[in-house]
Amino acid sequence: MTDSEHVPESNVDVLIIGAGPAGLMAACWMAHCGVTTRIVDKRGTKIFCGQADGLQCRSLEIFDSLGFADRAWKEANHMIEICMWNPGTDGIIRRSDRIPDTIVGICRFQQITLHQGRIERFFLDNIKKYSKDTIKVERGVLPEFLEIDESKVKDQSSYPVTVKLRHLTDEEATPQQQINGSKISDGLFRSNLMHADDEDDLIQKSKSRAGTGEIVHAKYVIGCDGARSWTRRTLGFELQGEATDFIWGVLDIIPITDFPDIRMRCAIHSAENGSLMVIPRENKLVRLYIQLTEVTPDASGRADRSKITPDIILNAAKKILSPYKIDYEYCDWWTAYQIGQRVGTQFDAHERVFLAGDAVHTHSPKAGQGMNVSMHDTYNLGWKVALVAKGIAKPSILSTYQSERRRIAQDLIDFDHRFSRLFSGRPAKDVMDAAGVSMEEFKKAFVKGNLFASGLIVNYGPSSLVSQAVDESKGVMSDTTPTIGSTNAFAKQSLAKGLPIGMRFNSFKVVNQSDARPWHFQEKLKSTGQFRIVVFAGNILNPSQKKRVEDFCEALGAPNSFYRTSATSSPPLDNPIEVLTIHSAKRVETNLMDFPEILHPYNSHTGWDYDKVFVDDVSYHEDTGKAYEGYGVDKERGCIVVARPDQYVGWVGDLEDFNDLQKYFEGCLMLSPRA
Amino acid sequence: MTDSEHVPESNVDVLIIGAGPAGLMAACWMAHCGVTTRIVDKRGTKIFCGQADGLQCRSLEIFDSLGFADRAWKEANHMIEICMWNPGTDGIIRRSDRIPDTIVGICRFQQITLHQGRIERFFLDNIKKYSKDTIKVERGVLPEFLEIDESKVKDQSSYPVTVKLRHLTDEEATPQQQINGSKISDGLFRSNLMHADDEDDLIQKSKSRAGTGEIVHAKYVIGCDGARSWTRRTLGFELQGEATDFIWGVLDIIPITDFPDIRMRCAIHSAENGSLMVIPRENKLVRLYIQLTEVTPDASGRADRSKITPDIILNAAKKILSPYKIDYEYCDWWTAYQIGQRVGTQFDAHERVFLAGDAVHTHSPKAGQGMNVSMHDTYNLGWKVALVAKGIAKPSILSTYQSERRRIAQDLIDFDHRFSRLFSGRPAKDVMDAAGVSMEEFKKAFVKGNLFASGLIVNYGPSSLVSQAVDESKGVMSDTTPTIGSTNAFAKQSLAKGLPIGMRFNSFKVVNQSDARPWHFQEKLKSTGQFRIVVFAGNILNPSQKKRVEDFCEALGAPNSFYRTSATSSPPLDNPIEVLTIHSAKRVETNLMDFPEILHPYNSHTGWDYDKVFVDDVSYHEDTGKAYEGYGVDKERGCIVVARPDQYVGWVGDLEDFNDLQKYFEGCLMLSPRA
Repeated sequence: MTDSEHVPESNVDVLIIGAGPAGLMAACWMAHCGVTTRIVDKRGTKIFCGQADGLQCRSLEIFDSLGFADRAWKEANHMIEICMWNPGTDGIIRRSDRIPDTIVGICRFQQITLHQGRIERFFLDNIKKYSKDTIKVERGVLPEFLEIDESKVKDQSSYPVTVKLRHLTDEEATPQQQINGSKISDGLFRSNLMHADDEDDLIQKSKSRAGTGEIVHAKYVIGCDGARSWTRRTLGFELQGEATDFIWGVLDIIPITDFPDIRMRCAIHSAENGSLMVIPRENKLVRLYIQLTEVTPDASGRADRSKITPDIILNAAKKILSPYKIDYEYCDWWTAYQIGQRVGTQFDAHERVFLAGDAVHTHSPKAGQGMNVSMHDTYNLGWKVALVAKGIAKPSILSTYQSERRRIAQDLIDFDHRFSRLFSGRPAKDVMDAAGVSMEEFKKAFVKGNLFASGLIVNYGPSSLVSQAVDESKGVMSDTTPTIGSTNAFAKQSLAKGLPIGMRFNSFKVVNQSDARPWHFQEKLKSTGQFRIVVFAGNILNPSQKKRVEDFCEALGAPNSFYRTSATSSPPLDNPIEVLTIHSAKRVETNLMDFPEILHPYNSHTGWDYDKVFVDDVSYHEDTGKAYEGYGVDKERGCIVVARPDQYVGWVGDLEDFNDLQKYFEGCLMLSPRA
Repeated sequence: MTDSEHVPESNVDVLIIGAGPAGLMAACWMAHCGVTTRIVDKRGTKIFCGQADGLQCRSLEIFDSLGFADRAWKEANHMIEICMWNPGTDGIIRRSDRIPDTIVGICRFQQITLHQGRIERFFLDNIKKYSKDTIKVERGVLPEFLEIDESKVKDQSSYPVTVKLRHLTDEEATPQQQINGSKISDGLFRSNLMHADDEDDLIQKSKSRAGTGEIVHAKYVIGCDGARSWTRRTLGFELQGEATDFIWGVLDIIPITDFPDIRMRCAIHSAENGSLMVIPRENKLVRLYIQLTEVTPDASGRADRSKITPDIILNAAKKILSPYKIDYEYCDWWTAYQIGQRVGTQFDAHERVFLAGDAVHTHSPKAGQGMNVSMHDTYNLGWKVALVAKGIAKPSILSTYQSERRRIAQDLIDFDHRFSRLFSGRPAKDVMDAAGVSMEEFKKAFVKGNLFASGLIVNYGPSSLVSQAVDESKGVMSDTTPTIGSTNAFAKQSLAKGLPIGMRFNSFKVVNQSDARPWHFQEKLKSTGQFRIVVFAGNILNPSQKKRVEDFCEALGAPNSFYRTSATSSPPLDNPIEVLTIHSAKRVETNLMDFPEILHPYNSHTGWDYDKVFVDDVSYHEDTGKAYEGYGVDKERGCIVVARPDQYVGWVGDLEDFNDLQKYFEGCLMLSPRA
């Protein structure tokens, strides 16, 4: 490109830089919500092996909400048990403990492993389907310039971010295979285990624009361009934290071994030769994280990774695993890393350019958190940007991205720091060995870490999207007192003790009133961009309770209710609020037609909606009827709960607390009273 | 084509005529087993709406064994409850009963509904994947001539069946949309609800051969070309049975109705206006089967279906459903039919040309059996043809196709005859009303029919593939007596009471010894073409039991064992017999390496096999540990069970009954003692 040539210019609502899991998650939201979006990546193809591989429970819940958890679940290795191996007094490693990999009862999914390339495949297929092929990753495209026009950032109709993009030539877009920035080639750019449905991506896309440049004006830019993020550096933001002394090697191999727990997740501390983690994978693969005690950093604190080879890593593994033998014929991928724990100082610029994923937090990969937390960043951000871009939500909600996610990043860094130290340390010989790591302490950290690593204990604090729970010990409100006239929406946690405000909407099984089919209720909280009002209608057969439900529905359906005055938009997000009902009467004693119409809306083309009213009752083939108990809701009186588009609980109140519910939505949605 | 032109000739192992569900199932087996195959269909495209829609439990088990039950399960409507509606003494219909649609506990799947076009899509994708794109449906190809050279039928290396095919032109291959043979157009050739992944099939395939002919020499031909099968007529075989007086209309609509059970399967008998069946479907669709009492057959017994319109059918439905209202804006498909129950006299010619599906049994569609039984025909036939074609199995097993499937077809016809009469009859006004149908009798037939309709009670009698169970009441054999020197392999049903010989291998959950993951055991009986020896190893921690297992494994591994002398073949079917183990000791007290090598074979490239040994023990997240109880096997002493490639139980014996096991395989496989 020469600057004298004509450079094409265009507008787009959202520009995503980087098509790894974080960028693809952002694009996925835009596809589901119907937002005009481009996503660019400087690499010439998607990746096909190696990289991240662990998927938390919460990631699977999110994938399910997007529509592809089943594909991951089917292809992945399921992680069931963790075995801990420690040296005995004779220095020989032995299994000392077994614990479940996923805490029992915490989620309907368990942690799984599957390489990042497959996850990206599922995202790409999902984006194609929901965007009707309008959002495609543009590969071999490099951002070169970014500028925010601060005079326009408060104008919702403007495109204040200008980005210059360059379409790379083939040679530019096909990088020498780099591993964590070193120049080591792993010689395995294309995995032998590649799936047939990935093959199309080997064919390079149209080259017609190769070597040319263009100017894009965007309402929002999301930088998901990795640990050395161009976007972050261009904004002048930094990562803060510390480096590490520990150097680790990674091998993805089909192991030939007599080690009995090779298909379990194992944490192995040897007496003198460092530690090793076993992560069983799909397709007979096993990933080994191996501490390289014989590779030492130089004076600058960095090791010369060009000297590290698969043989060096394998030999380190052999010493740690001795007296068991390990070898391989097939290696799918390998790398070595030395990573500190660092977190970004700022997650956005003017709430117009956002950073996510490795661009704002780096840490060791061993806990299998990186890809998950990165995807969760943009799962948190994407719907907010989409709803603001569509004029449905207030721009002020965008500040909750940093307030909600930066703390999570900090928690992750702290966790990784602690965990890495314990894992990399030499096992204590006895209680007096202060320089060694106590294996009991390690196990405790592991168990606690498992809870953290599930991704399910994330709790977003109060904001415009999460109501402040009232202090019920002070008795400000009883269940029957009308709500006070505060300008903020207060929430009554006691009405749904199993649905902590600020945490993800837990899942219990319910039964469809109309066709008796059991569902995990979370399956009904799809990522459509909609807020949900969940009406726990209680015992609808009790006339006084039925009256309460009818009164709530009348308020909800009144002309000036937020439900009627929220901004409508075009499909697929034609209604920003969906109402779902779970009642607790007997299914066979009730009838969909007995419920107020607003709970199962009538459409003149397709009749009544049969997919909105559910019951907490027994069913024929599955264990149902425990939802009210699990959610901690009174089976007679019920309550009302708001789930955000990302399934987090935003508000809990009584059927009489309509004013507070109205305030909640006044706080986050654009409402316009109807004429 | 003119006969004077050169007509190309070629050989193929298997030629399948007709690419409906029966033909695709046959092609699927050939793809999984790696058999050279062509499949032709005279239609120009696949179908996109309408046709069959009910899938039995057994069909889902089969789909799972092929690898796509999950796709059907996800897209389909799940059938949970049947509601029966009958007129009261006032003549007004009321719900009289509810019963589960699928008998509780009978299967891990429940009956679902999804239209035939989607099922065909799953087959096509699966065939493409497993055949590596070598087996493709050739559409617009018509068979014109078929001849069997009887002098060659006993020669396994020969191609005794000659078929002349004609590649149709566009006009010939795009039929006027026909419904059950009438000339009524439904005006909805392409459904509005078509899936994106079907769109490629709208593009006509290469026309280079249009209008030309060719000669194919085949080892085997499978005719799956429907009720008016060209293959059957060419062979001169007939369907025997009777016609029916009853005329039914079918509407696939999105209903607009206040009938409360519209999302349930309903059997509705009106007092005077005939009967109606409601079949809820995917995508808000509902199928209505509506008795057309006002359309009467002429003197020949046939109704003039050209006079039947959707309005006529809808009006009949309105009368039956009154006082409830029903209407629609969207109709996906409709038809009308008048079908008797008929079954083919012969299912094969010289065990070289086989007939399957509607070509050998026709009946009414209301019980949702047609597509299922048709697919089960070729699920029974396909692996037999594949294994004989590959030289693995003896040609004599091919006679079991007719002996096993013709009785099933007859059962189906009898069931449909009984069921249709009860369903089409006027409800009895009281016990004295002999001309009417007793609603109590109808319910009993329905419940009994449900068991039949599950597809799970199929029991194939003794043959070269199903051993004769010994009469244990006569005490011929006790569990410890050596087996008698019969030339036939006798089986001991008492050792595995939950695995009836001749019936499908029921599924209970087991746990993988190596990685602690729970599996439904049936998930490990994939349709690879392999027979399985399931070693119920019992309490392997008991030294005397361990010795029994080791002795069995030694016999199995001996040079002249069937396991060593069975014909090897090329991948994917490189080993015709797989050994799977389920033991009953505690998982954490046992170790894969303690089991004889033959139970978890070592491969010099990929190490030990971690997917062969399972345990009947508890697990963290699922309800396991009940497999021995479910299978009726002694937890201490275990037993040996043979599962055929189609999951049917072929033999049951003690660990000492190796001679009988050897005889079983001598009866069906080609064995050649090693040098």
